[in-house]
Amino acid sequence: MRIDCYFTHQFCEAKHLIGRDALVIDVLRATSSIITALEAGAKAIIPVAEITEALELAHALPGSILAGEREGERLAGFELGNSPFEFKPEIVGGRIIISCSTNGTAAITKAASAKRIWLAALLNSRAVASKLLGENVHDLAIICSGTMAEPSLDDILSAGAVLHQLTCSANLLLNDSAQIALSLYKNSLTIGIRKALNMASHAQKLIRFDHEKDVEYCSQENISITVPWLNKQDGRIYS
Amino acid sequence: MRIDCYFTHQFCEAKHLIGRDALVIDVLRATSSIITALEAGAKAIIPVAEITEALELAHALPGSILAGEREGERLAGFELGNSPFEFKPEIVGGRIIISCSTNGTAAITKAASAKRIWLAALLNSRAVASKLLGENVHDLAIICSGTMAEPSLDDILSAGAVLHQLTCSANLLLNDSAQIALSLYKNSLTIGIRKALNMASHAQKLIRFDHEKDVEYCSQENISITVPWLNKQDGRIYS
Repeated sequence: MRIDCYFTHQFCEAKHLIGRDALVIDVLRATSSIITALEAGAKAIIPVAEITEALELAHALPGSILAGEREGERLAGFELGNSPFEFKPEIVGGRIIISCSTNGTAAITKAASAKRIWLAALLNSRAVASKLLGENVHDLAIICSGTMAEPSLDDILSAGAVLHQLTCSANLLLNDSAQIALSLYKNSLTIGIRKALNMASHAQKLIRFDHEKDVEYCSQENISITVPWLNKQDGRIYS
Repeated sequence: MRIDCYFTHQFCEAKHLIGRDALVIDVLRATSSIITALEAGAKAIIPVAEITEALELAHALPGSILAGEREGERLAGFELGNSPFEFKPEIVGGRIIISCSTNGTAAITKAASAKRIWLAALLNSRAVASKLLGENVHDLAIICSGTMAEPSLDDILSAGAVLHQLTCSANLLLNDSAQIALSLYKNSLTIGIRKALNMASHAQKLIRFDHEKDVEYCSQENISITVPWLNKQDGRIYS
């Protein structure tokens, strides 16, 4: 399996994705929250990049839930923010969520040029690896969302987690960035993934903003077998 | 010491460098060759980005040596390419070298917005760390040249080598990319730096182009105490 990793979505141009499959990672917190929401019974997630677009879409879809954040804080007028703890079954069960996050949604939108698009986090890295193998993926782009156009340790660590799961079962042809992601994950095992994730500047920022529980939750590996995928026909994410 | 690493010079904008010191790394092969040339007695290196600029400068500086490559091969009409083995004392001793490389020179030119600029490679990582400590650097940008606008494992590994040397003597405040570089270096120690460097796609390309000896040479740690620096007044690199 050929795998190219991109450290931020800005690094990945649409032309890099033609004819390839893609995996999008925004572990703090977009993809972790999407996995959690779908597990909690949400019908679908609609990722949108702009706040105005989210508000218009919510108006057109009665019963949908607006979820979104900027700079780690819930947007005014939105029912939910981007904390995985907000996506409870009693709130999101059977409903469509319109999700507007800072970096993750932009990366998902970018990924739409690929053939098939899945979403990954630490929560589901083993399930993602199984999915990629089961779907006979042979040419994959891993798009790390990054934080404000800079590489984010949390996303690259999670890319490494998926690669680590794959190394047991597949011959991998990795670009330099994918090799670095795998190396980061392996080296992080020596101190533990939770501690390694905490070292990311975005994790530190969330902790300062009183979201330490979110970081702790997102550091859990393989507690979910949900592998969200983007339906390119309707632009919605399903489990 | 605050240290921000940039995985390619395209990632680093001039505004990131205002009031800071900078370290430029292009381990395969520009900074390794510059270190070697200065050790061999070259008077100075003038880094230029464009071939036409290099040719004009050579015309204006009789006795200077033109050295340059594109895509790993010596430029037509240039006396030297970019292999460290070409910079022998009997050729470069006492002379000015006009150096035009693909990625390294562009990174050095970018770095000129910083206060002070040094050059690093695996060959001199310990000496670079000593220099930074001796010069009381407190805010450093490490600019990895990258290869054709993509992060290059070889440069990031070498950034990690410098960081590893610094961890023994200084309190470091690292951005995510610097943490990842340090982690890559530490994990690479388990297989050995030479083998780790060989895994870089740029190393693989050089090996295919029959430059395996160059890669092997550049993988040597701490064989030099030369720390090249860019004189912003005349745009030349001295030891």
